[in-house]
Amino acid sequence: MAALEFFSQPIEITSQPTFEQVFEVVETGESHYGVIPIENSLSGSIHQNYDLLLKHNLVIVGEIKLRIVHNLIALKGVKFEQIRRIYSHPQALAQCKGFLQRHPHIEAIPVYDTAGAARMIREEGIRDGAAIASSQAAIDYDLEILQEEIEDHRQNYTRFLVLSREGVEPRGKAKTSIVFSVKNIPGALFKCLSVFALRDIDLLKIESRPLAGSPWQYLFYLDFEGSIKQEHCRRAVDHLEEITTFLRVLGSYPEGKQVDGRVYRREESSHGY
Amino acid sequence: MAALEFFSQPIEITSQPTFEQVFEVVETGESHYGVIPIENSLSGSIHQNYDLLLKHNLVIVGEIKLRIVHNLIALKGVKFEQIRRIYSHPQALAQCKGFLQRHPHIEAIPVYDTAGAARMIREEGIRDGAAIASSQAAIDYDLEILQEEIEDHRQNYTRFLVLSREGVEPRGKAKTSIVFSVKNIPGALFKCLSVFALRDIDLLKIESRPLAGSPWQYLFYLDFEGSIKQEHCRRAVDHLEEITTFLRVLGSYPEGKQVDGRVYRREESSHGY
Repeated sequence: MAALEFFSQPIEITSQPTFEQVFEVVETGESHYGVIPIENSLSGSIHQNYDLLLKHNLVIVGEIKLRIVHNLIALKGVKFEQIRRIYSHPQALAQCKGFLQRHPHIEAIPVYDTAGAARMIREEGIRDGAAIASSQAAIDYDLEILQEEIEDHRQNYTRFLVLSREGVEPRGKAKTSIVFSVKNIPGALFKCLSVFALRDIDLLKIESRPLAGSPWQYLFYLDFEGSIKQEHCRRAVDHLEEITTFLRVLGSYPEGKQVDGRVYRREESSHGY
Repeated sequence: MAALEFFSQPIEITSQPTFEQVFEVVETGESHYGVIPIENSLSGSIHQNYDLLLKHNLVIVGEIKLRIVHNLIALKGVKFEQIRRIYSHPQALAQCKGFLQRHPHIEAIPVYDTAGAARMIREEGIRDGAAIASSQAAIDYDLEILQEEIEDHRQNYTRFLVLSREGVEPRGKAKTSIVFSVKNIPGALFKCLSVFALRDIDLLKIESRPLAGSPWQYLFYLDFEGSIKQEHCRRAVDHLEEITTFLRVLGSYPEGKQVDGRVYRREESSHGY
């Protein structure tokens, strides 16, 4: 869904079993772009993908913020009263806790992923069960939405990054993602942030990850406003290089729009082109 | 093991099925202290426990950094050549990847926890399987260590926090943990860190978590050197209060020592005293 929302032209979507394999198929050129989730506004960063950004040599070329909408979906003709079991990914079940508590006679059963739950309902012809999944899954598996938006929090967004082998030159409002490690000196992180503050560059996000092999030392992932092609941003990063032991620009890209995950796109489903 | 290492006097250890229940039994007074992991030097922070620190009203009174040692343990008399299956927690299996790759004929089977894998070996009398677990688990379930330290990285430490309902006044080298959210103004985080830099207070760790209900805004968890009872630290936190929308001191406590998780403590096993 994030990919469909991001690209305006028709695209062919393929899926990979792991995030690492998404990076790999872009690196080998098998896919032009990769789309990975990087943070959710309720549960936080997907730290594994921060680590993979560092491990692989891809560039961030875009982002999109997708509102996560959970729907109760079942076989066509099945009534809500017939439902005894609800299948979904543990996180989706957790995000619909209120709904599940209001229907205590329904059992929540964790499965591998939300779309997989929908497929299972279809393939096994389950008539006393439903899945919690996206509207796209309802389309893909020819199921019916029994109830829309059953999630507890409406402010539930996942930010996805679009990865490529080659960078873009963003026009309009841009942001830049970098990763660095600081010298082990007092006030090191403060000095690093000062290179942005001194130039009135806004910081959007900071994330720390352990530096493997050096207990209690950290790598910092920083998002700031502006493109590395802009003079003041380039100077800030040059300045930062003086006070870090390691620094890599992960990409400059247009700031992503916030879109609703409810949009039906029957003609661009995950079956491809 | 962390609890046994932290407390010098004899203690009674009880376990809880979830981290949240650890917080709860300390809040109700059922337990005097709680011990929770907060970060691992390879895999990073345990973000759920950061969230629980905020949700519950407990105080951090201590910390301990335990080196994680993974051992291959089996029933007494079983030889390594007999082993066909290895049971452990998925993270322990991942941290012994090199060992498992060197023995491709052995199947790795994920189970709920490392100690549980050891108990299963004992209770089911499994003679063609082994567990990856701590030396303490070998003692508790009367098993034998077939091979010590089979983990890939020796620099594998987990930092645990000790929680209580009442704070301590740390002597010696102390650290303080706080959590705050910043005003949505340019350079906000930089200004927050400046209250420490201006007073030469060293920052030890910064962690960001999503602010629920406010997408793309964050809570920051900060560890710094010194105790809140010290004038310069108290002033820094007072100063910080001026530029934050929310601030809570989670505790000042003695800096924890780094200990080895290999110590045998037959007399202080998890069976009681």
